[in-house]
Amino acid sequence: MATLNGNFSNLQAGYLFPEIAKRTSEFAAKNPDAKILRLGIGDTSEPLAPSVIARLRNAVDKMSKVETYSGYSDDSRGTPELREALAERYAAYGVELATDEIFVGDGAKSDSANIQSLFGGGNVVAVQDPAYPVYVDSNVIAGKAGAGSNGQYDGLVYMPCTEDNDFFPTLPSEKVDLIYLCSPNNPTGAAATLHQLKTFVDYARENRAVIIFDSAYASFISDPRLPRSIYEVEGAKECAIEINSFSKEAGFTGVRLGWTIVPRDLVCEDGAVGQLNGMWSRRQNTMFNGASIIVQAGGEAVLSEQGQAECKETIAYYMANARCIKDCIEGLGITCYGGVNAPYIWMKTPSGVTSWEFFDKLLGETHVVGTPGSGFGPGGEGYFRLSAFGHRKDIDRAVESIQKNLKL
Amino acid sequence: MATLNGNFSNLQAGYLFPEIAKRTSEFAAKNPDAKILRLGIGDTSEPLAPSVIARLRNAVDKMSKVETYSGYSDDSRGTPELREALAERYAAYGVELATDEIFVGDGAKSDSANIQSLFGGGNVVAVQDPAYPVYVDSNVIAGKAGAGSNGQYDGLVYMPCTEDNDFFPTLPSEKVDLIYLCSPNNPTGAAATLHQLKTFVDYARENRAVIIFDSAYASFISDPRLPRSIYEVEGAKECAIEINSFSKEAGFTGVRLGWTIVPRDLVCEDGAVGQLNGMWSRRQNTMFNGASIIVQAGGEAVLSEQGQAECKETIAYYMANARCIKDCIEGLGITCYGGVNAPYIWMKTPSGVTSWEFFDKLLGETHVVGTPGSGFGPGGEGYFRLSAFGHRKDIDRAVESIQKNLKL
Repeated sequence: MATLNGNFSNLQAGYLFPEIAKRTSEFAAKNPDAKILRLGIGDTSEPLAPSVIARLRNAVDKMSKVETYSGYSDDSRGTPELREALAERYAAYGVELATDEIFVGDGAKSDSANIQSLFGGGNVVAVQDPAYPVYVDSNVIAGKAGAGSNGQYDGLVYMPCTEDNDFFPTLPSEKVDLIYLCSPNNPTGAAATLHQLKTFVDYARENRAVIIFDSAYASFISDPRLPRSIYEVEGAKECAIEINSFSKEAGFTGVRLGWTIVPRDLVCEDGAVGQLNGMWSRRQNTMFNGASIIVQAGGEAVLSEQGQAECKETIAYYMANARCIKDCIEGLGITCYGGVNAPYIWMKTPSGVTSWEFFDKLLGETHVVGTPGSGFGPGGEGYFRLSAFGHRKDIDRAVESIQKNLKL
Repeated sequence: MATLNGNFSNLQAGYLFPEIAKRTSEFAAKNPDAKILRLGIGDTSEPLAPSVIARLRNAVDKMSKVETYSGYSDDSRGTPELREALAERYAAYGVELATDEIFVGDGAKSDSANIQSLFGGGNVVAVQDPAYPVYVDSNVIAGKAGAGSNGQYDGLVYMPCTEDNDFFPTLPSEKVDLIYLCSPNNPTGAAATLHQLKTFVDYARENRAVIIFDSAYASFISDPRLPRSIYEVEGAKECAIEINSFSKEAGFTGVRLGWTIVPRDLVCEDGAVGQLNGMWSRRQNTMFNGASIIVQAGGEAVLSEQGQAECKETIAYYMANARCIKDCIEGLGITCYGGVNAPYIWMKTPSGVTSWEFFDKLLGETHVVGTPGSGFGPGGEGYFRLSAFGHRKDIDRAVESIQKNLKL
């Protein structure tokens, strides 16, 4: 008799965004005339850059001719062109990477969910609280998080990110082995300084812990002093894996492309130099067959000079949205964070209502959908995330509706 | 201190195809004038169908306009259009499926590797021997296969597929819980009859085992009496997951698209009806973000009437290749199988040499690359797989070189 992976039953709730979609469509069904305004899931809304479109078209055309058709990639790590372009990007940050340290994948979600499989069951996992749910849920499914209650898991170490610590955690008091950090942060919108990251890099090197660093929003950093990569911190290559994505930078949420850096210098346990790099390579070769080559060509265009100029315009557009939302929330006398170096506004729920209560209130009164902070972990309770992705006119409408209809 | 997933060190060898690529490029480096003829990895060589190209272009164009751009899919299961088209395909086989039983993914490799995560660690896993290496290796990495030696794993049940049983296994004598079956088979090229599949469906229902059925080569079946789906066997929905792919049917090896069926009726252990379907949905929502929407549009075109007509032409082209190769091998007096309902020819190595010895011999004498049978499991020793994918002129050259240069 086949038996189930019992860890699934430890999961505390449905994956956050399907749950929001469900509640939203239930509301829409009951209120057919309401125009729903979505600031919930961080979904891009603006078209792909012209140079990216041109390259995607070209990649499709190549598949139509026998001379230029291609099948499986020679290397599941991705095309040499794309990995070289990524290495150049890091070089501009002052970070030197070999192309065999760069693994192109189908997005940061898959990679950040699968990366835990490199590590054994006994590792103590630390997450920022609140955090992107995938870090926690993937570890729950893999049996690395233990039993759960009240939206928390016994086996995880939660590192609170609060107003008091500027939403960047202090080092955990107990010893931990795997540390998930995300900067600029989803959901809080906080972007870590070099000094803040250094505290964790130093800790990890001292304790041979491994940092899994999610920099999916690095392109939204406006402050030039802030690091775009954890490898800007000296020694980080010995202790950190970095995961990033084309989703938000280039509107690839539906196109699917991302990358993961597993430096050859990364070590843990008594592993040899290069061992973790080799293990991830083996994992990807065995359980993944590379990102679509059509999509990878699009990624190359994103990283071209022209592509970067075009993508930056779209990012500026979203960040102007963020400014509008932030002004609106602050104008109502509600405290909020983020929205400067990240496309998320992290607001305190007014009158101390819970995150899900505010979700229902905001949807009911203003028809605006946001994301309950508690969906990102217990530390998110009492907060609410608004996303700056969206067409300007929808953002304007949402802001207007909040100003007019939200009962404070 | 972070510790490694020790199961990786149980893996007996590098993933098969990178190993072949490595040996081939070493040979090419030493023999710069040799024109290498590749019948190794089953990589498609002919361009995408015109109707698929048109739809891919259209999907790219949609991403260039604000009115038609789209981001994340509403459902990581895939677009409704694609899932409906897949349901129609199954209906033509006499199999009724709801669209929420169909999960579109980025290819059969990922899904067949990840599907084991639904099941607990105590399950006894049975594989055909020889088999596509992903079934075994993914279970090794997940700790479900035990320690290994001589290319085998202690915890797995190997079901021999030999000349004596027409390359379809008899039921295992011990009780097993998860059973991987592939038909038409990679690597042996054998296509199972309805009766053969029924023996396993009956076994699985009786023992509440789960069959993971890989039908990635179903489109290559020429005999109309042979089943294209395991669900053509009565009761299979209660005990089988089916995984399939656009890779070989439509030349999507580099484009990346596939699908998995987890029927709502599927049960194991004391799980409720629908539980496994819900778990796979949760897994995909949490650890995957859907296949590229551009690529999914291409998949819709594959399933259109025009697309099917075009893809069938290409399949016929490959199957004519298979005929050439089979004739060549048989003409040399060497026993071989497959190549009729599958694009693989499974030949016995001449003079009893090992599979890898024959690999080196064939490459050295004829410059033809094939796949050593032992790479698919101990039962593949003494066999060698030749792939029918490739341009006709390359197949002709390979055949000519084998006829002229292979020393028997």
